[in-house]
Amino acid sequence: MTPPAYTAMMAHVKQTRALGQVAGLLSWDQEVMMPPNGAGARAEQAAVVEAISHQRRTDPQLGDWLHELEAARLNETEVANVRLTRRSFDRSIKVPMALAEELARTAAHAQGIWAQAREANRFADFAPILTKTIQLKRQEAACLASDGRSAYDVLLDDFEPGMTVAVLQPLLESMRPRLSALRQKISESGAHQPSLQGPFATENQLALARKLADAVGYDWNSGRLDLSVHPFSSGTAGDARITTRVDPDEPLGCLYSTVHELGHALYEQGISDGMDFSPVAHHVSMGVHESQSRLWENQIARSRPFCQWLYPHFIDAFGECGVSDSEALYRAVNRVETGFIRTESDEVHYNLHVLLRFELERDLISGALDVVDLEEEWNTRFLRDFGVSVPDAANGVLQDVHWSVGLFGYFPTYSLGNIYAGQLDQTLRMNIPDLDDQLSTGKTDDVLAWLRENIHRQGSLHAPDVLMQAASGAPVSTEPLLNYLETKYADMFGF
Amino acid sequence: MTPPAYTAMMAHVKQTRALGQVAGLLSWDQEVMMPPNGAGARAEQAAVVEAISHQRRTDPQLGDWLHELEAARLNETEVANVRLTRRSFDRSIKVPMALAEELARTAAHAQGIWAQAREANRFADFAPILTKTIQLKRQEAACLASDGRSAYDVLLDDFEPGMTVAVLQPLLESMRPRLSALRQKISESGAHQPSLQGPFATENQLALARKLADAVGYDWNSGRLDLSVHPFSSGTAGDARITTRVDPDEPLGCLYSTVHELGHALYEQGISDGMDFSPVAHHVSMGVHESQSRLWENQIARSRPFCQWLYPHFIDAFGECGVSDSEALYRAVNRVETGFIRTESDEVHYNLHVLLRFELERDLISGALDVVDLEEEWNTRFLRDFGVSVPDAANGVLQDVHWSVGLFGYFPTYSLGNIYAGQLDQTLRMNIPDLDDQLSTGKTDDVLAWLRENIHRQGSLHAPDVLMQAASGAPVSTEPLLNYLETKYADMFGF
Repeated sequence: MTPPAYTAMMAHVKQTRALGQVAGLLSWDQEVMMPPNGAGARAEQAAVVEAISHQRRTDPQLGDWLHELEAARLNETEVANVRLTRRSFDRSIKVPMALAEELARTAAHAQGIWAQAREANRFADFAPILTKTIQLKRQEAACLASDGRSAYDVLLDDFEPGMTVAVLQPLLESMRPRLSALRQKISESGAHQPSLQGPFATENQLALARKLADAVGYDWNSGRLDLSVHPFSSGTAGDARITTRVDPDEPLGCLYSTVHELGHALYEQGISDGMDFSPVAHHVSMGVHESQSRLWENQIARSRPFCQWLYPHFIDAFGECGVSDSEALYRAVNRVETGFIRTESDEVHYNLHVLLRFELERDLISGALDVVDLEEEWNTRFLRDFGVSVPDAANGVLQDVHWSVGLFGYFPTYSLGNIYAGQLDQTLRMNIPDLDDQLSTGKTDDVLAWLRENIHRQGSLHAPDVLMQAASGAPVSTEPLLNYLETKYADMFGF
Repeated sequence: MTPPAYTAMMAHVKQTRALGQVAGLLSWDQEVMMPPNGAGARAEQAAVVEAISHQRRTDPQLGDWLHELEAARLNETEVANVRLTRRSFDRSIKVPMALAEELARTAAHAQGIWAQAREANRFADFAPILTKTIQLKRQEAACLASDGRSAYDVLLDDFEPGMTVAVLQPLLESMRPRLSALRQKISESGAHQPSLQGPFATENQLALARKLADAVGYDWNSGRLDLSVHPFSSGTAGDARITTRVDPDEPLGCLYSTVHELGHALYEQGISDGMDFSPVAHHVSMGVHESQSRLWENQIARSRPFCQWLYPHFIDAFGECGVSDSEALYRAVNRVETGFIRTESDEVHYNLHVLLRFELERDLISGALDVVDLEEEWNTRFLRDFGVSVPDAANGVLQDVHWSVGLFGYFPTYSLGNIYAGQLDQTLRMNIPDLDDQLSTGKTDDVLAWLRENIHRQGSLHAPDVLMQAASGAPVSTEPLLNYLETKYADMFGF
């Protein structure tokens, strides 16, 4: 028998969740649809929804229900919902309203200053507000760290529940030597890497992006594709929208960012199965979310067999444009090049970018690194890891928005996503022995069905590491990812 | 000195207004963007926003502030804001929550039944829930009519504040003889009325719709144009969006519904001038709103000089398509034809349609007419007013959605809008002597400037009749509209 307190609490939580979805729509609309002069009213609208949400998340009645339910006999789903509600409630009541408001205000302010500083290419313009942001994040972490955890562990936990530096650091750092060696080998191989010749008409890019959505099993009755400055995914299971961007000179940015967002959206479309609005019907972590986007983007859509399927559609959309067969397309979409910008980087360089940010932000939060030394430290470490010197702040320390809006602890989830994706790919290949044959005909429904069952439908029933271990049959490890990368590029570049 | 209670109340009201705008966006998105499977979550989202809005509108704190402020010294704007807040507060607290919820539930249910009944073309299927809806609307009116007003007056007041049957009925009924006579004359004239030959490509219709928006001074930085099943306008001053629909066989539906919605949107874009979110920064009534849409649609965009400007753009978009000069286009966009459907009717028939509905709904609410007799009564009166027999329920009593969703008292505002538009047109022509010359070159900025000053910027500072009298220099009267129609068609059909 479900206790009445559980039913009452779930009704409360359901309404709060619906409000959160409303906030998501306000934000989607702002990025995709809203005319410029709507900004003033939109800020008021978002503020009032956030104020009411905060009030509901800290409602003392929740504390009473939780107290009662933590002593009650409940089934597995109910236990998980109580655990997740407790997590959110504690998170919300421990940070004083005044601090939460100052964090939000500072983030809004700092984002503008960051954008201007990047435009002016001057880190010193951004440094003061970054220092203030870090102080506020430390204060926030102190409120939450009543159990003695370090500030960075607390911040990390917001994005990857249960993750700690003690687990994360060796995991990430173990990747650096093999990735650096691989980077070095590729760069020394001097192999020819085909590049595409345009132009690539916008409508043809979008038509092919839609074809890719069809190919991976995206449900158009539960989503839509639009344009925005930065691609993103948002929404709910029945309304998991994605966006993309189009550069008429370069189609791969559109196509592969679309597949990336499709990976996120497939996860959302698959989470809910009659458990809408409850805490378990929610993605479990940013790392797991990223594992879905990266798996579809890289291990699936950048694979040789998938490129064999893609090739005729690609030629159909753009003409030959410099790639004379599917192998050339495969090499073009897997081009490796040392660059300064994380978001443009290939599979080999990507995690080196993340590693750099992880170590710097960890030290900024602990105080081991001072903001005044950040730019120099960034540049020194970049030269060490990438073998080239950062030319300026815009190509270095000022390139990412994250720190300006207080997203400390977020970067590592990008690499965790890659690591998880490596494990899932290995497991998928064991479970679907003819996967390559399937992909070469554009067949992905076995992949999706496996992910639906082993990842999506699990929602937040288990912690991320438990979920990944259950799905992949092994503890979290970088081996599958590194093996995949080394094998792939050794084959491609012949070393 | 502004009393602190005023400042506090305005802050409260501002947040409630922002929430109302959020509800508006949820609804816009649902009509225009949302994928089908988003419906379930959207209903929850809308319900929670409405529940919180209702809570805020009935907050006892509002009553305390109002009590204090109604005895305070305030300036004109403050007095108006207090009056409007009182109106909303009383409206909200007088209807018990249980009744408000049953009204909402019944409306949602009845709309589905109405749609099915219309599909099946059987009024009897819709009659029972219509009877229930009318009973609930009477109960609602009884809660609000503590001052002894009739139920229909109370319902009317929701859409046209201060309007009563005592004023409205003679106004509307005085139109019937002259409109019927005009209808008869046109029908007997047997004059040739040109019609357009298609097809009319969707993208060309939309491009021309956008050109019309430019021509009337629509601010694209504060709005956007999309497609929806039924055209509508929504949003705020900085974000006044419109929609249209496209029929590839017939372009005038798209073009003139666009101008209609543009008229609504220009009003919204012009209302707010640094008084965002306050009650006075709001359209004053549905009649005045409709006056703006109808003025632009008919007196401006269906005028001979505007058609002279439009003609080359029209030919540019569609080729000659059966209209060899601007006079032929003028006659095509002013085609008069007796039809059964209100939304498709011309300027002559439109108010006859509204009159029919007004008298029937007034009698349904008073009890003078029973639902069981409604269809027969509709058909009898239609034959009397239009000279043709209604063939079936879908072309008669079942054609409009309004009654199914409880919108009693709304129909008359369509005719009030036309009456007001007639007065405003007369005044505009006195104030802008060379208006026809201006319109023949597509120049409308003098019109817009006059409307901005005399209507839009006034918001809800004054009651609708006071506003219209101040703008037009005369009490509300049907004379200008009827004179305009008689002159226009006598000239066109040569009688």
